Amino acid sequence: MFRRLKGLFIGSPLETASLHEQRLPKKSALAVLASDNLSSTAYATEEILLGLVAAAALGVALPLLYAIPLGLGIGGLTLLVVISYGQTLHAYPTGGGAYTVAKENLGVTPALVAGSSLLTDYSLTVAVSITAGIAALTSAFPVLYDHRVALCLLALAGVLVANLRGVRESAAVFAAPVYVFIFSIYLLVIGGLARYFLGSPVIIENPEIPRSLDVTWSFFAVFLVLRAFASGCAALTGIEAVATGVKIFREPVARNATTVLYILAAMLGTLFFGITVLAYLYGVTPHPDGKETVLSQLGRTIFGEGPIYYVIQGSTMLILILAANTSFAGFPRLASVMAQDRFVPRQLAHLGDRLVFSNGILILSAAAAGMIVIFDAQVHKLIPLYMVGVFTAFTLSQAGMVVHWYQSKERGRALRIGVNALGAFTTGVVLVIVAIVKFSQGAWLVLLAIPTLVVINQLVRRHYYTVGRALSLAGYEKPKDLQHTAVVPVAATNKMVLGAIEYARSISRDVIAVRVNVDGQDRDKLQEEWQAWAPDVPLVVLNSPYRSILRPLLRFIDEVETWRDDDVVTIVIPEFVSSSWWHQLLHNQTSLFMKAALLFKPRIIVTSVPHHLRQ
Amino acid sequence: MFRRLKGLFIGSPLETASLHEQRLPKKSALAVLASDNLSSTAYATEEILLGLVAAAALGVALPLLYAIPLGLGIGGLTLLVVISYGQTLHAYPTGGGAYTVAKENLGVTPALVAGSSLLTDYSLTVAVSITAGIAALTSAFPVLYDHRVALCLLALAGVLVANLRGVRESAAVFAAPVYVFIFSIYLLVIGGLARYFLGSPVIIENPEIPRSLDVTWSFFAVFLVLRAFASGCAALTGIEAVATGVKIFREPVARNATTVLYILAAMLGTLFFGITVLAYLYGVTPHPDGKETVLSQLGRTIFGEGPIYYVIQGSTMLILILAANTSFAGFPRLASVMAQDRFVPRQLAHLGDRLVFSNGILILSAAAAGMIVIFDAQVHKLIPLYMVGVFTAFTLSQAGMVVHWYQSKERGRALRIGVNALGAFTTGVVLVIVAIVKFSQGAWLVLLAIPTLVVINQLVRRHYYTVGRALSLAGYEKPKDLQHTAVVPVAATNKMVLGAIEYARSISRDVIAVRVNVDGQDRDKLQEEWQAWAPDVPLVVLNSPYRSILRPLLRFIDEVETWRDDDVVTIVIPEFVSSSWWHQLLHNQTSLFMKAALLFKPRIIVTSVPHHLRQ
Repeated sequence: MFRRLKGLFIGSPLETASLHEQRLPKKSALAVLASDNLSSTAYATEEILLGLVAAAALGVALPLLYAIPLGLGIGGLTLLVVISYGQTLHAYPTGGGAYTVAKENLGVTPALVAGSSLLTDYSLTVAVSITAGIAALTSAFPVLYDHRVALCLLALAGVLVANLRGVRESAAVFAAPVYVFIFSIYLLVIGGLARYFLGSPVIIENPEIPRSLDVTWSFFAVFLVLRAFASGCAALTGIEAVATGVKIFREPVARNATTVLYILAAMLGTLFFGITVLAYLYGVTPHPDGKETVLSQLGRTIFGEGPIYYVIQGSTMLILILAANTSFAGFPRLASVMAQDRFVPRQLAHLGDRLVFSNGILILSAAAAGMIVIFDAQVHKLIPLYMVGVFTAFTLSQAGMVVHWYQSKERGRALRIGVNALGAFTTGVVLVIVAIVKFSQGAWLVLLAIPTLVVINQLVRRHYYTVGRALSLAGYEKPKDLQHTAVVPVAATNKMVLGAIEYARSISRDVIAVRVNVDGQDRDKLQEEWQAWAPDVPLVVLNSPYRSILRPLLRFIDEVETWRDDDVVTIVIPEFVSSSWWHQLLHNQTSLFMKAALLFKPRIIVTSVPHHLRQ
Repeated sequence: MFRRLKGLFIGSPLETASLHEQRLPKKSALAVLASDNLSSTAYATEEILLGLVAAAALGVALPLLYAIPLGLGIGGLTLLVVISYGQTLHAYPTGGGAYTVAKENLGVTPALVAGSSLLTDYSLTVAVSITAGIAALTSAFPVLYDHRVALCLLALAGVLVANLRGVRESAAVFAAPVYVFIFSIYLLVIGGLARYFLGSPVIIENPEIPRSLDVTWSFFAVFLVLRAFASGCAALTGIEAVATGVKIFREPVARNATTVLYILAAMLGTLFFGITVLAYLYGVTPHPDGKETVLSQLGRTIFGEGPIYYVIQGSTMLILILAANTSFAGFPRLASVMAQDRFVPRQLAHLGDRLVFSNGILILSAAAAGMIVIFDAQVHKLIPLYMVGVFTAFTLSQAGMVVHWYQSKERGRALRIGVNALGAFTTGVVLVIVAIVKFSQGAWLVLLAIPTLVVINQLVRRHYYTVGRALSLAGYEKPKDLQHTAVVPVAATNKMVLGAIEYARSISRDVIAVRVNVDGQDRDKLQEEWQAWAPDVPLVVLNSPYRSILRPLLRFIDEVETWRDDDVVTIVIPEFVSSSWWHQLLHNQTSLFMKAALLFKPRIIVTSVPHHLRQ
């Protein structure tokens, strides 16, 4: 049953031998990796504006015009990060995520901080993207707004299944919406500008938020401007994915990846800045209840509620839901790398049936689903958690690259050091700003989660090392041949019990049958009955004044264990196996309890001899 | 940890030898068995009145005066049932519940119908009693009304623990509240009558329900009167418990039990009829939202909200909660008898640590908790389910007694036949009435549950018979000595694996190591590494193009199984055992899956050789 369903949704297993086929041409790779980054244009502008609106609510009226320089600043930051990452790709053509770069150049702890930051952020990316995607849908159809959590979980399930099927098929799903989105947002920007300057624009006037104004500067006002800036930095997420996911590119990997990175950056910058300018020109501010996105308002204002508007909303929804895919590629891949280094459980290291890291994909889905439910599927509640991890990873990655170039012998390394140092410094400053201004809004959660994850990573690694040492064959000496005694607990004299006795006699020359006399039967009669059927196996009858079966048995087994040094006691349990679970319920579960009680005793081995009702 | 908590709440185990001490003197036995029956006076009157009020809502105004003849009818019915049961005690001094009587005289199916009816009813008794007990509490403190489900579950947990400790200690807990309740309700009845006839009573006038009136008789009116009557029959529950629980009486058992039975009946009759008369005199009707019980209204009207009122409410609450105890004595005892006959799972047959049938007690608690939650802890929702089982058991028991006397040689048996035949006929008629008038209110559930339980009973017995036959040694011939091959799945070459190999060599001369080559390592190198450490054990390397560990292994084991006839294959699995569960999580669960996959294969035996990290 389960296997059939799995076959239907996930597809049949793929051979390891077909692994090399799973590399993608540039166009498809761009679709897979770009969606996250470009899709952030759907909410980054809105987050900046929300920051300005929130300031007004706190008594500091910041003009809407500020969105423009903030947008420019974020664009500049993007450029800087992209150039820095271009250098990383050049140096690490086989995959240079922040974790790898930090591990090679800065050491284990910075690497774990980077790794944990990224794992956290991948989960948040999924939650934010899907939430924002459903927001695009509910903006167009407000009646769905109250069902947004269920819709988010549905979308998440869809992405999950697509990813469990494998990355090649994902690219097929993702390419079309990504390109439609890019086209339709460019159309929106160009159409919006054209209508504003050539046509008869509808300008929304908001009395609370002045479109431009002299601001009384105060410490608090600076804090609020920085907070708006920090929110807008959501636009920068997803750049890391190109560096980590470099393996999915075809040869020449580094050049293809760099090309995609620059194309992405150029589109991101123009789209994000374009939308920000439009929002200012048309005076659009976030809907007070969050029921309609800024992008949706722009679309409706500029094109009316016609086909173009629905194409914009539809492709925005699709690209956002699909944006989660970046993380579904990134998270399991990073988890697998960290598992190979023994920092996370090794189950995450292996490829599943369909040549994807299934366990990582499932964990990521669970984490994202949890966040969607906890934060009630509202983008602005999730955003404050978002930036700390991104900028921690950026900073550590750039700092690692500075060390890398410093140690390399390459020509012109001074320039490279300079670029990465500037990157590290800038992103570091942004990190500090984000951590401070967003702290009380939720960033504290992430600031707590990252060190916790780092500690867990180290405990996991220490455990694997301990095990590795304990199992190592260094100095192993072959022991003497084992002696062993077989003890068969019997509850009656029947076919099942005699079957177990036969088996016990085949594995040991010393077999003892032991019976717990719970209901106070006559000992001689029990012995007599036993001798009639198994004369060559001694029967020990144990009293049990308190009617417990387990306790006298365990005491007896302990005693047998002391009879000989250097031996092993095998407990052979006759066990009834029925073909239906409800029949199984009708039999005492003593053997289960016995196994549980004996599991932690050294030198004792438990074997069940199943008796099948029909064989 | 678990054992400590258990010791604290339940007490330490009791010896089987102390079993005979657990018989009770009459006074204590009455407290244990009476509570259910007497406590029904707390809600039986209210249920009759509710029937009349409901009739008014349906457009048929039945006068409140009708409560008196209905009460008298129920009193007469009680008398008849008690006399019939007195005869049963005489004939079955070792315990003559409906199940036993029906089995001996009517056959298996009627016995199972009686048994299932009683099991259902014991569960309902617990649910109804506890719910009504908490209703007494929330009547005095209305602020607690909204927390009634939680309060019910809390009270249930208390009763559960008391019963797991053992019946002797239960009697100690139960005696005081029972006697306080009896005293305080007699006080209420006498005080109420005195005040009505001698003092200045406050009479409540309810415009909707006339106190007396000419009724236009119709078929529907008769139906509604019968429904009110059926509800009031709740007063009869608990009589059966004396007959089933006869074993807890001291010698002479039959005489002691009969005495207690008649004392109970006398008290029940006077208290129930007294409360019904008072309710009529004072014009008390059930609170529309069920927020205050009739008994509480009477107490407040007659004595005011002073200490006497609170004693009445308190002892009512206690006796009702403790009334559940009758079922905690009856249900597990009946289940044990039925388990000895193999009609219910045999785990219910055995005495637990404290000489009580712990498994039965736990199942009963779970069933009652479920009903409390489903029916929202409201007495009037549970009552309609209640009577079908009680009267089924009564009818079958009396019918069985008719057959019993008919076959006996005793003098004066004609009178005895007559009494029991009248009992059987009357309770049979009431049963039909109850089943019809309460059908749509919930009785259908029980009418469905009883036959279902009967079918399950028979399937259980059939299974145990099949197993008994299959395990029987009739015609057993000792097989040839077993040959067996040991297969050791290995994932690496390390100390844990070599330990398993040593063990395998000690149980079989034919040991094969088998390794699934998931990550495509060089076969010759694997062989070489293996030969260095275990030259005398051949290693088979299996390819796994789809990276599955399990599938190639299972295929190989199937193959080994075909190599020889008449042999057994032992799979020796090296298994890592760590002292903490989270360490355990860090290791692949392959061995678990392997065991699950091999459990149902005949002639294959699975052994884990645990490797302990610290030993």
